[in-house]
Amino acid sequence: MKSIKIKAPATVANLVCGFDVLGMCLEEPFDIMEVTLLNEKKVIIHSADGYPLPQDPQQNTAGAPLIEMINTLPEEVGFEVMIYKNIKPGSGVGSSAASAAGAVVAANLLLNNRFTNEDLVRFAMFGEKVASGVKHADNIAPCIYGGITLIRSIFPLDIITIPPPPLYVTLVHPQIEVKTADARQILRKEVLLKDAIKQWGNIAGLVAGFMKGDCDLIGRSLEDVIIEPVRSVLIPGFDSVKKRCKEAGALGGGISGSGPSIFMLSKERETALKLETIMKEIYDGIGLSYHTYVTTINQRGVTVIE
Amino acid sequence: MKSIKIKAPATVANLVCGFDVLGMCLEEPFDIMEVTLLNEKKVIIHSADGYPLPQDPQQNTAGAPLIEMINTLPEEVGFEVMIYKNIKPGSGVGSSAASAAGAVVAANLLLNNRFTNEDLVRFAMFGEKVASGVKHADNIAPCIYGGITLIRSIFPLDIITIPPPPLYVTLVHPQIEVKTADARQILRKEVLLKDAIKQWGNIAGLVAGFMKGDCDLIGRSLEDVIIEPVRSVLIPGFDSVKKRCKEAGALGGGISGSGPSIFMLSKERETALKLETIMKEIYDGIGLSYHTYVTTINQRGVTVIE
Repeated sequence: MKSIKIKAPATVANLVCGFDVLGMCLEEPFDIMEVTLLNEKKVIIHSADGYPLPQDPQQNTAGAPLIEMINTLPEEVGFEVMIYKNIKPGSGVGSSAASAAGAVVAANLLLNNRFTNEDLVRFAMFGEKVASGVKHADNIAPCIYGGITLIRSIFPLDIITIPPPPLYVTLVHPQIEVKTADARQILRKEVLLKDAIKQWGNIAGLVAGFMKGDCDLIGRSLEDVIIEPVRSVLIPGFDSVKKRCKEAGALGGGISGSGPSIFMLSKERETALKLETIMKEIYDGIGLSYHTYVTTINQRGVTVIE
Repeated sequence: MKSIKIKAPATVANLVCGFDVLGMCLEEPFDIMEVTLLNEKKVIIHSADGYPLPQDPQQNTAGAPLIEMINTLPEEVGFEVMIYKNIKPGSGVGSSAASAAGAVVAANLLLNNRFTNEDLVRFAMFGEKVASGVKHADNIAPCIYGGITLIRSIFPLDIITIPPPPLYVTLVHPQIEVKTADARQILRKEVLLKDAIKQWGNIAGLVAGFMKGDCDLIGRSLEDVIIEPVRSVLIPGFDSVKKRCKEAGALGGGISGSGPSIFMLSKERETALKLETIMKEIYDGIGLSYHTYVTTINQRGVTVIE
C-alpha cells in the first residue's frame, strides 16, 4: 500500500502589522502525519497519541480538505491519515492549518502531484472552515509554500511569496485559551483612517525589509496600532514580554495569530535564547504554565520524512 | 558667483493603494531652477516666466525650505532662485514639492553636499507646509531620491526606496481645480476594518510587485477601496479613463496625489501611447481642456543640467 510520512510545521499568522494577510512558517513545532492511499472514496482519521480528534472526517481539519480533494477526482481513491499532534490546538501557531496543509500536501504527493499549490490551499481552507467557521489562508499558505506569504486576496486566491532573510524566532505559548472567534469579536469594525495609514505604511516597510534583508527596517515596521492594543489585553504578561524582549535585542514581534502565543524575531541565535530566558522568567513570575521554542523560519513548508 | 541649474521633476503621490505613504518620480514634466549662492543670509525668489509666485520667501514653497536650511548654518550664506515653472500648481503631480525639493537639492550642491538626503526632505517639507498647511513627504521624497519611495513614518522620518521595474507612465491633467485641502476634507475619518485589510494587502502586493519586477502583481495590487471611491467623484471622466485604459492594456492606475491628474502604468511604450489617445478622446468628448504626458519612472530625482 502506498504511504508517506510528512512534517507539518507551525505557522505565525498576521506578523504584527499584516492582520489577515501575512503568515510565516516555522521549523518547530511540527505535527507528524502518515497518509496512506486507499482504493475507495473514503477518508479515515486516526489520532496516534490519543488526542481526542473528531472521528467524522467532515468535522476534522485534516479530513474535510481530503474529502474536497477526492470529490474532484473521477477515480475511486481515498486516504487513511494517522496524526501525531504536537501543535496544540488553540495555541495560535496554526494547529488546524498544519493538519489541513499536511494532509493535502501528503495526499497530492501520493497522487503524483496532480494539484498545484494553489489548489492545495483551496482544499486546505475547508479545514480552517471546520476549525473556526471561516475560510482563511494566512496559516495554510505559509505551511504549504514555506517562508513568508502574503495573501493579497482570498476570492480570487492571490498568494505572493516574500523571501525573508534567515532569522531566529522565539515563541512562548502561555497555557491559557484564547478562542479565535472571541479574539475576532472584540475587534472594532471601524478603525481610524490615520491608524490604517500607519498600518499600511508598516506592512509596506515590513515587506520591503524582508525582501531587502534589512533587519533594522523589519524591526521598525513590526508595529501594530490597530489589532494588538485590543487583543493583547487577553494575554497576561504580553506587555512585559514585548518590552523586555525588545530591550534585550529582539527586532520586534507580537501576538502569533489570534494568540495566546507570542513570537519575537532576532538576528542572532544568542539573542533568541536570551529572549527565551526572559519569557520563562515572566511566566514563572506570573505562575502560568507555558511552552517555549527557539527556532528559525522554515523556507520549505510541509516536508517529507519518509 | 557660484550658481547651478537643475531639473525638478513631477511626482505621483499615493500610487492608488499607498495613500499618504507612497510616491513615484516622473521624467516629465519638470521645472527648471537656477540657484545662485549669496554671501548674506537672505533668500530671493524670481519667477522666470511671469508666473505669479509669492515674492516673500517665507510664503514661497522654494523659499521656506531654503530659509530653514540657512538658519542651521553658522556662516553668512543665502540663495537667489530663478524658477521656470512648468508643473502647474493644483495639478496633483507635486508642483510645490518640485519647487521645494529642487531648491534644497541645488542649494546643497552649492554647499558641497553638507546635508544628507533626509535633511533635505526635512527642509523641503516646510515648502509643503506653505503650500497646503501640512508637512508631508510623499511628493518630496520621490523628487529627491528618484524611483518609488515609501514614507513609513514622518516623525521620526523613515524613507525607504523601492526599486521599480522600467515602466511607462501616461498622465492626463484635466484643467479643473481640486484643492488638496478640499480633497482631504471629503474623506471619512473612520474606515471599515475589512476595507483597511484589503488596502494593506494591496500595498504589500504592490511593494512586492515592484521589488520582484512582477508587472501582473503590480496590476492586481493597484486597487484602492478607501480613497478613490470618494475622491474620484471630483474628477469628471475618471471612471471612463480608468475602465478604457485597463481594457487597452494598462497595468492599472488612478488619481495622482489628490487629483485632478490621472496616471496609468504600462509595460510597453506602445500601450502608453494608446492610453494617451484614449484620454484625449475622453476629455475632448467632455469638452474639458487638458494636458497629457507619456513618460517613464525617473530613477534619479532632481538632476543637474549645468
